[in-house]
Amino acid sequence: MDLMEIGARARTAADYLNKLGMSRKNEGLLKAAQALVDRQEEILSANQTDVENAIRSGMNEGLLDRLKLSPDRIKGMADGLVKIAALEDPVGEVLSMKQQPNGLMIGKKRVPLGVIGIIYEARPNVTADAFGLCFKTGNAVILKGGKDALNSNRSIVTILRQALEKEGILQDSLQLITDTDREVTKKLMRMNEYVDVLIPRGGAGLIRTVVENSTVPVIETGTGNCHIYVDEGADLDMALKIIVNAKTQRIGVCNACESLVVHKTEAEKFLPMLQKAMEEYHVEVRADSDACLIIPGFSEATEDDWGTEYLDYIISLKLVGSLDEAIAHINRYNTGHSEAIITKDYERTQRFLNEIDAAAVYVNASTRFTDGEEFGFGAEIGISTQKLHARGPMGLEALTTTKYIIYGNGQVR
Amino acid sequence: MDLMEIGARARTAADYLNKLGMSRKNEGLLKAAQALVDRQEEILSANQTDVENAIRSGMNEGLLDRLKLSPDRIKGMADGLVKIAALEDPVGEVLSMKQQPNGLMIGKKRVPLGVIGIIYEARPNVTADAFGLCFKTGNAVILKGGKDALNSNRSIVTILRQALEKEGILQDSLQLITDTDREVTKKLMRMNEYVDVLIPRGGAGLIRTVVENSTVPVIETGTGNCHIYVDEGADLDMALKIIVNAKTQRIGVCNACESLVVHKTEAEKFLPMLQKAMEEYHVEVRADSDACLIIPGFSEATEDDWGTEYLDYIISLKLVGSLDEAIAHINRYNTGHSEAIITKDYERTQRFLNEIDAAAVYVNASTRFTDGEEFGFGAEIGISTQKLHARGPMGLEALTTTKYIIYGNGQVR
Repeated sequence: MDLMEIGARARTAADYLNKLGMSRKNEGLLKAAQALVDRQEEILSANQTDVENAIRSGMNEGLLDRLKLSPDRIKGMADGLVKIAALEDPVGEVLSMKQQPNGLMIGKKRVPLGVIGIIYEARPNVTADAFGLCFKTGNAVILKGGKDALNSNRSIVTILRQALEKEGILQDSLQLITDTDREVTKKLMRMNEYVDVLIPRGGAGLIRTVVENSTVPVIETGTGNCHIYVDEGADLDMALKIIVNAKTQRIGVCNACESLVVHKTEAEKFLPMLQKAMEEYHVEVRADSDACLIIPGFSEATEDDWGTEYLDYIISLKLVGSLDEAIAHINRYNTGHSEAIITKDYERTQRFLNEIDAAAVYVNASTRFTDGEEFGFGAEIGISTQKLHARGPMGLEALTTTKYIIYGNGQVR
Repeated sequence: MDLMEIGARARTAADYLNKLGMSRKNEGLLKAAQALVDRQEEILSANQTDVENAIRSGMNEGLLDRLKLSPDRIKGMADGLVKIAALEDPVGEVLSMKQQPNGLMIGKKRVPLGVIGIIYEARPNVTADAFGLCFKTGNAVILKGGKDALNSNRSIVTILRQALEKEGILQDSLQLITDTDREVTKKLMRMNEYVDVLIPRGGAGLIRTVVENSTVPVIETGTGNCHIYVDEGADLDMALKIIVNAKTQRIGVCNACESLVVHKTEAEKFLPMLQKAMEEYHVEVRADSDACLIIPGFSEATEDDWGTEYLDYIISLKLVGSLDEAIAHINRYNTGHSEAIITKDYERTQRFLNEIDAAAVYVNASTRFTDGEEFGFGAEIGISTQKLHARGPMGLEALTTTKYIIYGNGQVR
C-alpha cells in the first residue's frame, strides 16, 4: 500500500480512536492479547522463516536472540497487553480548569497525540508492545520494523488487526509498513501532514538517522553513558554494592553504569576493593594514569573511553580532586541519562542533584532504577534523553498531549 | 565569532544560569530594563540606520512598521522585562515526590531547558522579549534576528550584555549571531551538541524552513486558520458579535478568525445579518455556492480559500447540514490553532470540544483569546500549534523541562 494512503488511513483511525472510549479500548487490548496466544503457531512459523534467513545472512548471536520468538515470549507479549489494559487511562483528564476575570473558564485536557510512527529494529516483541501503548492512549500507530523481522511482524500485525476487527474496532488503528526500501522510511520521517510524532526505538545509529532526517517531531530515546561518583567520605561498602549492581546486573541496557568517578581521598582505600569486585565479575577497568599508579592491574583509559557506552564488561574510572571536577567531567561526557553520587554530605547531594544535567540524578542508589516499571508507571515506551516533551522514562502520559477547552458565554476582546 | 565558539559559550552560560538563583536573575532583568531606557538614543540611532536601509531596499509599510523603534516602543521593551521579573519563577518547583516500595523517593523537578536558539524576523522588540523570557527561566539564549534589523539588534544586545556584566552576571547568557550568511543559520539548526531547543518566531515561511532543516528539536509556533461554527439554534446576535470581534478586532494576528461554518437551518436568517456587519467592517466574504445563492453579494470561494490564513479583511464561509460535517470541514482545513462553536446545545458543545483537533477549542467565545496574557500566563513566547512539549500559548513553563531527582539509601536492583 502507498505510504500516503497509510498516512491518510492512520489519520482517520486517530479521529476514530479519539472517540472510542476507555472500555472499548481495553476490550480491544484483551482480545488482541488472547489472539496472540490462540494463534501463536502462525507467529512462530513466520518467525522461524525470519530466524533462518537471519542465520543464513550471518546475524550475530545477540541480535538473533532478540529476533527469536518462543511460546513463552509470545505469552509475554500477550501479558504485556493485558497489563496495559489494566493501567489507568490518562486520556480525558482535565489537568486544570480556572476562571479568568472575564468569566471564561479555561481548562487543559489530556488528549491523544494523534498518529504515532514507531521505527525500530528486528525485535518483534516491540510490535505488540508499541501497539498496546499507542492504542491504550487513543493513538493510531504506524509501525516500521527492521526488515529482518518482517515475516514475524506481518504475522503479529495481521493477528492484532483481525482481533480488533472481530471486536468491531477499526483495523487501521494499527498499520505496518512492509516496504523495506530505505527511501520509504525516509518518506515516513517527512510525512508531517499525517504523522504527529516519531519515536525511534533501537541503537544509537537508528536514532541518529531518524533525528537527522526527520521533519516530523521526534521523541529521542537514548543511549546511556551513566556515571557513578564516589564522594569524599562516602560509605565505601555501599558504593561498591551499588557499582557492582549498576555495572553487572544487566550489561546491555542503557541505565547500566559505564563510568566511575572517584574522589582522590578515597582512592587508596577504595580502588583495591573495586579491583577485587570487578575481577570477580570479569569487568575490565580502564582508568586514568593516577588510578593506574595505585592499581597496576587496571588498563590505561584513552580520551575515547570517557565518552563510550560499552554495554559490555568494561568500565572507565577517573579520579578527581573535588566535586566541581566530578560534575564538570560528568556533564561533559554524559548522554543525559542517569547519574549517581554516593555520599554522606548533605550540601554535596544538593549540588549534585542541581548541577548534573541528566534525565535522572540519584543519591545513594543504583542507576539501574531509571525504568518506567521501577518509577511506578506500569509500562514504558522508552527513556527520553532529550529535554522536549518528555525526559526520562516515558509512560502512557508521554503518548498524550493537551488541548485547551474554553467555556464562554459570549466573551469578546 | 565562530558559531561553535558561540555554542560552547552558551553551554557554559547555561550551567552558570542554572545556579544563579531567582533574585539575581530578577535583578539582572531590572538592570537590563533600565539600561534600555537610559541608552535609548544609541538604539534609536542604530534603528534609524536599519530603517533607512530598509526604505532604500523597498521594504513594505507593514514590515517597516514592525522594524521601526520609538522611545515609546523602547519603553515597552523595558516594561516587558520589568513585568517578566515580577512573574513567578517556574524553575526549581518539585512537581511531585513519591516514595516507591523499595524506599526510593522519586521526584520530578522543573529545570531550565539549557540553551535556546531563537530565529526571528526583522522585529527588534523580539530581541529584548526573547532574552527576558529565556533569562528568567535560567536558559542561555542565542538570537538570530532578521538581517534588516541587524544594527538595532546589535545595539540592544550590546546594551543588555553590558547591563548584565555591570550586575556581575555572565554576559554570554545572551548572544547574538551577527553573521547574516544563511549557511550560518542552517548550521545553528544542526548544532545539537550545543543547542537544546530552537524556537522560530515569524511567518509561515520562516517556520517551515526551520522545521525542514533543523535536527535540533523545534517548538513550532504557528499560523492560525481559525474557524467559528454557528450551530443550529445558536444565539445569532452572540454569533455575530463574536465573529465581528474575532475577524476585525485585529486583522494580522494568528488567533483572528479566517473562516465561518454556518448550519444551513440558520443561513436564511443569519447570512443577511452577517452581510450587513461585514460590509460595515469592509470584510469581503468568500462563500460556497449555496451561500452565494442566498447572498449574491458574497464572492464565490475556491478550494484554496478553505485553507487560507488571510490576515486581511477577507473571511471564507461554508454552509453545512450537520455538526459532523462542520467538524470534518474544520479538522480538514484548520492549522491546529483555535476553533469555536456558537451553540445552545449541551451535547454538541461536548462533541465539538472533544472532536476538534486544535490547541484551543471554544464554546461561545472569540478565538482572539488564545494568548498567554489572556490565559493568565503573564507572558508568552509564542503559540504552539504542534503537539509535542507545549500546545497553545506558551508561558514561562514552556521554556523549562523536568529532571527526576532520586533520594536513596543504598538501593540496588
